[in-house]
Parts: sequence; structure tokens; C-alpha cells
Amino acid sequence: MSENQTVRFGIIGCAGIARKVARAIKLAPNSTLYAIASRSIEKAQKFAGNNGLSGTVKTYGSYDQLLDDPCVDAVYMPLPTSLHLHWAVLAAQKKKHLLLEKPTALDVGELDQILEACESNGVQFMDGSMWLHHPRTAKLKEFISESNHFGQIDIIRSTSTMSVTQDFRESNIRVKPDLDALGALGDLGWYCIGAILWAKDYKLPTVVNALPDVTKNSAGVILSCTASFHWEPLDETVATIHCSFLSHTSMDLAISGRNGSLHCNDYIIPYQEKSASFDFTSGATFVELHIGWNVRPEEVRVISELPQEALMVEEFARLVKGIMKFGHRPDTKWPEISRNTQVVLDAVKKSIDLGCKPVRL
Amino acid sequence: MSENQTVRFGIIGCAGIARKVARAIKLAPNSTLYAIASRSIEKAQKFAGNNGLSGTVKTYGSYDQLLDDPCVDAVYMPLPTSLHLHWAVLAAQKKKHLLLEKPTALDVGELDQILEACESNGVQFMDGSMWLHHPRTAKLKEFISESNHFGQIDIIRSTSTMSVTQDFRESNIRVKPDLDALGALGDLGWYCIGAILWAKDYKLPTVVNALPDVTKNSAGVILSCTASFHWEPLDETVATIHCSFLSHTSMDLAISGRNGSLHCNDYIIPYQEKSASFDFTSGATFVELHIGWNVRPEEVRVISELPQEALMVEEFARLVKGIMKFGHRPDTKWPEISRNTQVVLDAVKKSIDLGCKPVRL
Repeated sequence: MSENQTVRFGIIGCAGIARKVARAIKLAPNSTLYAIASRSIEKAQKFAGNNGLSGTVKTYGSYDQLLDDPCVDAVYMPLPTSLHLHWAVLAAQKKKHLLLEKPTALDVGELDQILEACESNGVQFMDGSMWLHHPRTAKLKEFISESNHFGQIDIIRSTSTMSVTQDFRESNIRVKPDLDALGALGDLGWYCIGAILWAKDYKLPTVVNALPDVTKNSAGVILSCTASFHWEPLDETVATIHCSFLSHTSMDLAISGRNGSLHCNDYIIPYQEKSASFDFTSGATFVELHIGWNVRPEEVRVISELPQEALMVEEFARLVKGIMKFGHRPDTKWPEISRNTQVVLDAVKKSIDLGCKPVRL
Repeated sequence: MSENQTVRFGIIGCAGIARKVARAIKLAPNSTLYAIASRSIEKAQKFAGNNGLSGTVKTYGSYDQLLDDPCVDAVYMPLPTSLHLHWAVLAAQKKKHLLLEKPTALDVGELDQILEACESNGVQFMDGSMWLHHPRTAKLKEFISESNHFGQIDIIRSTSTMSVTQDFRESNIRVKPDLDALGALGDLGWYCIGAILWAKDYKLPTVVNALPDVTKNSAGVILSCTASFHWEPLDETVATIHCSFLSHTSMDLAISGRNGSLHCNDYIIPYQEKSASFDFTSGATFVELHIGWNVRPEEVRVISELPQEALMVEEFARLVKGIMKFGHRPDTKWPEISRNTQVVLDAVKKSIDLGCKPVRL
């Protein structure tokens, strides 16, 4: 750790998202951006220059060099998914705490190797799902956990769509079979699945069923898919996801329970940084003659002093500091969240590969 | 028709919804509420008294008597679904124009007998889907039809849920196998299916698939179900419905296209009578560093001088007047809408009966 007790981060890979997280590391009070590495020193220096980091961070022309730097406490790794296994395991072996971009791995077998490496090397693991760290998410949870005003969850619908160019659909890293073979399911479906598991307190569904509307690019990578989730036989919740690189950019989370319902249409990336909201309705019924409602959706607004990505970094660094300074054991909540998400994502992929047959977990 | 050229309505059956439509007939400028019939004269008189109609409408103690009254031009029929076939056919045979409450019939075979009776007797048919007559619905259509701002429809999600008592779930008319054997699918799913067909310009899906979360009451009537709709192989739209008597009262319609998306959370019954809104977003993308959006949902508000049920009555009466006064042929749009809705509803029912197997249309 640095002299002022902050966790020193190295960033491995200069993906677009690294710019956002570099800023987040600077914003988080317990973190310092210490170094960045790319496959060439020129790219690392260019990234530093473009992001106002020249002179303040070390630049490395290889990932290995950064991992060998003893001053790096933790790494943020926004590499293509197919490279996670190698570099994440290596980072753990080098005793670097690991903030790994989602999707965490190509499948849960790979993720288990990464998690095992983290555990055996005593380093913290967390994936880059920023929205889980927004105070709005905690407020949403509070609402759906309230039995009188919300009650048992009946249906969860989560979607994440992003409009991309034709060129992107064929050649972007995120849809290349050798780099991000999970395509839209890995990139966007990760959030949809994560939101459903989050709402269900990470209780795994028993049946996962992709619906027959899968679209793939010419290399066979998923561009769009839909799936349903069931918790048979005793739990009556049904959940659906839809993720797509074909549709207009949108991200909806709608949850209905016995006594209430809510809508959030920017759950992954809030419309604005400092505050975010959702709509909540409870106890709705129709007025006399069914010519209107007794209640309207109420907007619940939550202020956030730091953007959610900085809160993610702050939480991660807090755990790292606990390990480094106070000898705590790595927190197990975050790796478990990642693993459950990956398990369900794998099941959707399997259902698609089986021609949209139900997959039992 | 009356001396002042208004269409004279008779109401057959004193269901709760009849009170709303009785008011709507009074509000519609081209309609008059002329008579009401129940199975006993006492019930008809009580209905008249409770709704401020005493002395202004005729009351009949049998449906036959009302149908035999030559002054009745049109009937509104909110009877339990299992009674539709008999009474709707009889009404048509008595040359009464027919505004029939939804679901129109227990299956499309029954509906075809009703429609055939209407056609051969030259009377107008329309079902009681009020929301289709709200000017907001026309505005929604305008938005999703705009190729630049909305584009091809990728996903449609429509839900309709209503919180009812345990007692209702077992013994209300709407969940009794001998009265409304379609349960929540017929009562609420009718709207969900109708909204999807409306969005798709009534193009029938090729595959209908109930999802394995069906809940039934002890008599085997559907209390809750979910289904997906596909227009394979060339059309990439996917649609899902969820209807339930178990959840909090809610009604969502969310549609995403290539270039835009919209949300309407009161599409069946607007929050208020005189105006209604929906949220629309087009051209959304993230701002620099993905720390917010370039646009927010825009609320589009539509004023309605008359409530949607009065607009429905007005449209129906306009068509009836065209037939009675000007010798027009009955309009075919409304019966076709009803029939397509019933065909898809039947397919969902069949998929459920087959254990949630896909049904091809």
C-alpha cells in the first residue's frame, strides 16, 4: 500500500472501459492509480496521455512487467474474456488482488480456476459489475424485501440492449469467437442475469430456457437472445432476460410482487452520475368504476456522492486494505456472486447450443 | 335509432364492468342507454337504481325480453364467457349490433359461430377492448411506426396483473371452469396478446410458447401464466406476455426497436381519465466515458376529452349508424382484431395444455 494507506492499482489492458475505471480509481478515496500496462509501451503511454495520467502513473509495455512490480497491490483487468484465465490466474499467483471485468470467464470451469488461484493466494476477487455498488441498488433491494409493500416476487424482467454498427457486429472484440465468444450474452446478458440473481438473493434457478429468437453473427457469436428462468417446483417466480446488440440502447429492470411493483430503466448505467431513481407502486387498485387508479408510481430518487464505478473501486480497495493491513481473509460474497452469475450464463448458453431446450441446474 | 339519431343500447347482464360501460354510453354523444336486462327484474331495477338510471332506462327481467324489444339497436354484453356463444348468436339473429366483452369466446370455434351470425345478419361486431380506442394508443402507434426514430421492432413485453383475494381465486366468476374457463389468460392475457398483435399490425406469430410457470386454482383454471411469441424465420421480433391474478395490479407495455424504445405502465386503464402518457427514447447512447446518457426518456402526454370506454362506444355507434342510416356494410377491422387475438389466446392455452410445448400457427 502507498504511504497514505491507499491501495495501488495497476490496469492491465487499455480497453475503452479502462478509461472509466482509471477515473474511478482516482475518485475513490482509498485508491491510487499506480501503473498501466498494454502490449506495447507506446499504447500504454498514449493511454496515459489521453487520460491526463502522463507523469503520474508508471507505464509498462507488457502485462508481465506490471504484475512483477511489487508496488502494485491490485489489478483491474479489462481484457477480452478469452484472455482472463491466463492473466487472472497469473495475477493471483503474483499476489495481486483482482478486479476482473465481466463476463468473468468463458465458462464456470475457467472461472473456478481463477477463483481457486485467488483463494490459494489469499487475494480478493471482484468482478466489474458497477451497478451493484450504486446506493440506488441497495434502495431497490430494500423495497423488494419489504413484505407488506412488495411481498413475494412474481416476475422479474431485465433487459440490456445496445445499438451497434454493422461493422461492430462482425468484427468488434466483443463478438469475436477467439476473444469474446459469449457475445451479447456475455457482455449485456451478464447484467440481466446478475439483476435476476440479485433480486432472488442469488438463489439459482432450477430451469433455464433460451427462447427461439437467437441471432448470431457470421462467426456464430450471439448478437441477441432471450431466456426465461424458473425456480420450480415451490417457488413461483418467473424471470426473463433479453440482451441484444441489435436494438436501441436500453436497460430495463421491472419487478412485480404480490403487493408492489417497480421499474428502473437505467439500472446498469444511470442517466446521470450524482443521482438515480426508480418508480415504485404499492397497493395499487382501481378507483370506483375502474376509471383510474388509486395510486401513481412514486419516483424514489437516490443521491450518490461518488459515481457507482468509484464506489465499486472503493469497496474493493476497502476489502484489499483489510487483507493487507489487518490480515482479514478475502471476502467471499463477491466471488460467489460472480460464480452464480457465470453458472446461469453458462446454462443460457447451453440451452441455446441445444436448440433452445430447457436446461436443469 | 332514436329521434335524435343516437344508437339505442341495451345492456345484457349486470356485471361490475356494465356500470362503467353504462356511464360510457351516456358520455358518448351518439349513443343512448335504452334498456338493461338481468336474470331477474329485481336485479335489473337494483342496477338501474344504483347507477342513477331509474326512470330513464327500461328494465327487463330476462335477456330474451331485451333482445325482443325492437327499439334496441345494439347490445353490450358483459356476460361470463361460457354464455357468449348462446346469447351473442341470438342477439345477432335478432339483428342487434353486438359489443361483446372480452374474452370473446372460450375458443375461436365458438367465436367463428358468433362472427358468422353477425355477418349473416348484417350487424356490427366489436369486442370490449377499450384501450385500443384511446388517442394515446394511436400516438403510440405513430411512434413505433416511425422508421428513423423507432425502426424494426425487436422486443415487445406486455403484462397485466391484478391482485385479487384468495376467495376470488377459487370462486369468482372469472376463474370458474363453467363460466370463465380461461381464467387470467382470458381476462388479463387478452390485453397482453392484443397489445402484441396491435404492435405487429396483427401479423400472427408462427410459434407460441407457454413458459413453465403456470399456476392454476383447485378447479384447474389458470391464475397466472407467461408465454413467448415468435415470427420465424424471417422476422426477428420476440414478444413475451405475463398475466396473473396473483401479483400486484400492474400493466406494462415495453417495446424496443432498432432506434428507439418506449414504456407505458398503464396501457389498459390509464392512471387518469382525461390524459395519459408514455415514455419514449430515441437515439440513446452513452456520453463520453460511459458515465451517463445523451438523452432521457421523454414523456409524451395525450389529452382525451372522453374516457376511452366512451370513445369505444362512440366508434361502435358510429359504425352502427353507418349501417342503419346509410346502408354501409359492417366494418371488418374489429372482428378481425378479435379473431386474431382469440387465435393466439387459444395457442397459448394449447401450449399450456400440452405441458408448455411450442405451438405452431
